[in-house]
Amino acid sequence: MSLFLQLVSVSKAVDELRMIAVRCGVEPVPLADALHRILARDIAADVDIPGFTRTVVDGYAVRAAETVGSSDAIPSMFALMGRVAMGASAGMNLQPGECIYVPTGGVLPAGADAVVMIEHAEQIGDEILIKKSVAFGENVLLYNEDFSEGEPVLRMGKRLSAQDIGVLAAAGCRDVPVTRMPKIGILSTGNELVPVSVRPQAGQVRDVNSYVIAAAVRDWGCFPVFYGIVRDDRDALGAGISRATAECDVVLISGGSSKDERDMVSAIIEERGRVLIHGIAIAPGKPTIIGKCNGRPVIGLPGHPASAFIVLIAIVRHLITAMTGETGSSVRTLQAALDQNVPSAKGREDYVRVAVKNGIATPLFGKSGLLNTLVKSTGVVRVPAESEGLETGTLVEVILW
Amino acid sequence: MSLFLQLVSVSKAVDELRMIAVRCGVEPVPLADALHRILARDIAADVDIPGFTRTVVDGYAVRAAETVGSSDAIPSMFALMGRVAMGASAGMNLQPGECIYVPTGGVLPAGADAVVMIEHAEQIGDEILIKKSVAFGENVLLYNEDFSEGEPVLRMGKRLSAQDIGVLAAAGCRDVPVTRMPKIGILSTGNELVPVSVRPQAGQVRDVNSYVIAAAVRDWGCFPVFYGIVRDDRDALGAGISRATAECDVVLISGGSSKDERDMVSAIIEERGRVLIHGIAIAPGKPTIIGKCNGRPVIGLPGHPASAFIVLIAIVRHLITAMTGETGSSVRTLQAALDQNVPSAKGREDYVRVAVKNGIATPLFGKSGLLNTLVKSTGVVRVPAESEGLETGTLVEVILW
Repeated sequence: MSLFLQLVSVSKAVDELRMIAVRCGVEPVPLADALHRILARDIAADVDIPGFTRTVVDGYAVRAAETVGSSDAIPSMFALMGRVAMGASAGMNLQPGECIYVPTGGVLPAGADAVVMIEHAEQIGDEILIKKSVAFGENVLLYNEDFSEGEPVLRMGKRLSAQDIGVLAAAGCRDVPVTRMPKIGILSTGNELVPVSVRPQAGQVRDVNSYVIAAAVRDWGCFPVFYGIVRDDRDALGAGISRATAECDVVLISGGSSKDERDMVSAIIEERGRVLIHGIAIAPGKPTIIGKCNGRPVIGLPGHPASAFIVLIAIVRHLITAMTGETGSSVRTLQAALDQNVPSAKGREDYVRVAVKNGIATPLFGKSGLLNTLVKSTGVVRVPAESEGLETGTLVEVILW
Repeated sequence: MSLFLQLVSVSKAVDELRMIAVRCGVEPVPLADALHRILARDIAADVDIPGFTRTVVDGYAVRAAETVGSSDAIPSMFALMGRVAMGASAGMNLQPGECIYVPTGGVLPAGADAVVMIEHAEQIGDEILIKKSVAFGENVLLYNEDFSEGEPVLRMGKRLSAQDIGVLAAAGCRDVPVTRMPKIGILSTGNELVPVSVRPQAGQVRDVNSYVIAAAVRDWGCFPVFYGIVRDDRDALGAGISRATAECDVVLISGGSSKDERDMVSAIIEERGRVLIHGIAIAPGKPTIIGKCNGRPVIGLPGHPASAFIVLIAIVRHLITAMTGETGSSVRTLQAALDQNVPSAKGREDYVRVAVKNGIATPLFGKSGLLNTLVKSTGVVRVPAESEGLETGTLVEVILW
């Protein structure tokens, strides 16, 4: 491999990943387990919602037109025809001059089109004095006002929120067709790595990346599979990649940050498949490798956890979205004004960590290897490749962690 | 009970819930399972991070002072003392005039304090020409620059993000002390309710609330326990509440929206414990009941899913935060300008759904019983009790769903 990497742009890297992404299949999950899953089909209401005109207050169902002009001073009088039981149809037709008591959620009888709240009525024997006029549809939910039978309530690609789960319940969707969660194989390479349970000796560092990567992909609706720490050894790494690509949809290898290690990872991918990209015009994250083995995307991430995390957010997230079919964006952003200049090299997309407070974004120019700036920051600001930097006062979009 | 509820303010209701909240205990979870859990103890680094000065580039470790003035035109010359292996200490002391090759992530030898990138050096036999000066600490992470041994890396109460998981890995926290997830018992009452699997007949509606509530509390780090649909029957409801309060930390009952039903729920709570609040000055959500049975908070939520959801967000969320000890807020907000007036009654806290696009918030004044405005909206705007409404153009904070 050449010492000087052929850098490709972030957008080209993302395009490449979208091209090699294989859409995950569909599986049904019980509604109670569908939160945060990606809907794999459009869902239509299987009934009209509501299926009948119902009151949203306790009161008297009437024909609205008959209440016109009613007031405390000049009430109108209606014959009380009884009360509607919850969960049952009204079982009658409301005739002119009649009203019927309906508790909140109860069915309006045929003929009625509004409800007068109990607070605005007075019972005198079998008669009800109505002291306030109501408009058509007032205090009621009309038949199929929310959704009509057959109407799509949610579109495929939606990441299901709590409210979405409620809408699916109303639509009768007990088993929800969702995208299968991509299985992401995670390998860490590097002779300097030790497990978290071990106290590092001179020259050693703990394997932070496996945990950061697993947590990030879990956040994006994937299922992480840990393959542990693999030594910088051609055979061990080759065997690890073979096993992980056989068992997972995507393999993320982190480490291999030195030229020798990168070259080895690249050579092993090339042996078993193909290296598509080696080096991306992004900072941090330049030494990223994108390839394909066994038909599966294999991505070599930088060894520094903070750099690996940026590559996950800026690049790998798009692969996952293409696999799950998620539409819209689950990326949260925030507008803020920079309080310092952010220099940047033209031709390279920079991701600068910022801390945001009261609409002001303060860049944290820490070294990319530091973890403390990752947790002290609110998110990152992207400096586009065509820009030579951003000036103090610029309104930027902060990609929230 | 009186027909006219004694309404209490939202802040009083929240204070009451905080008072009756019992802090959940602590349990250890493996680091790989700790994402989104609430940290229950301060965590300190068990080692210095990094434990040695290491390079972040491939290059030559030097004494920075010796490179002053080096350039392409006038390089300085150093004796190459070999290379440092990954994962091992450098095993030498760098003397004046010497340099040593260190791959990315490798240990700097004693005496070295910076690294010259390989791109700015040239090897000639056993000598290295350095063509660029470096400053002290350049291209390296200094010993304990990230965290010192014993320094707190994360504070208790933090909801753990992917980056936090990485910091815990570096700090050696393999088993993470987190707050036990509160168990939330969920009952739906109402003779009109049928399970999601059933096609509703006249007068019937599906049990949407159980699913919405379960999903919402799951989002906030709780474990929902379903007790299903309970008929509006004193014995059945009483037995359900007894069982749920014996098995869970909090019980949420939804439904009981009509006066009769509310009064029954209230009477049953009073029989088995105490009703603390019956009616809150909030819209939607006024008929909320807060009580305590069996030492556990029992909350009667409105029957309309959209109203129940607002009460969850505005009131119940504070109970859960008090139980888990979460500090800071997991509530995401967004600033936007209203494009319409929002009227509101003084003395009542209103929550108005809004759709936000390009910084403009459009109120969705749908009936509170509609589900479609829940999914069409971006979040809610709170109109404080002391306000009589918000005018067009007002900058508001949108509480994102």
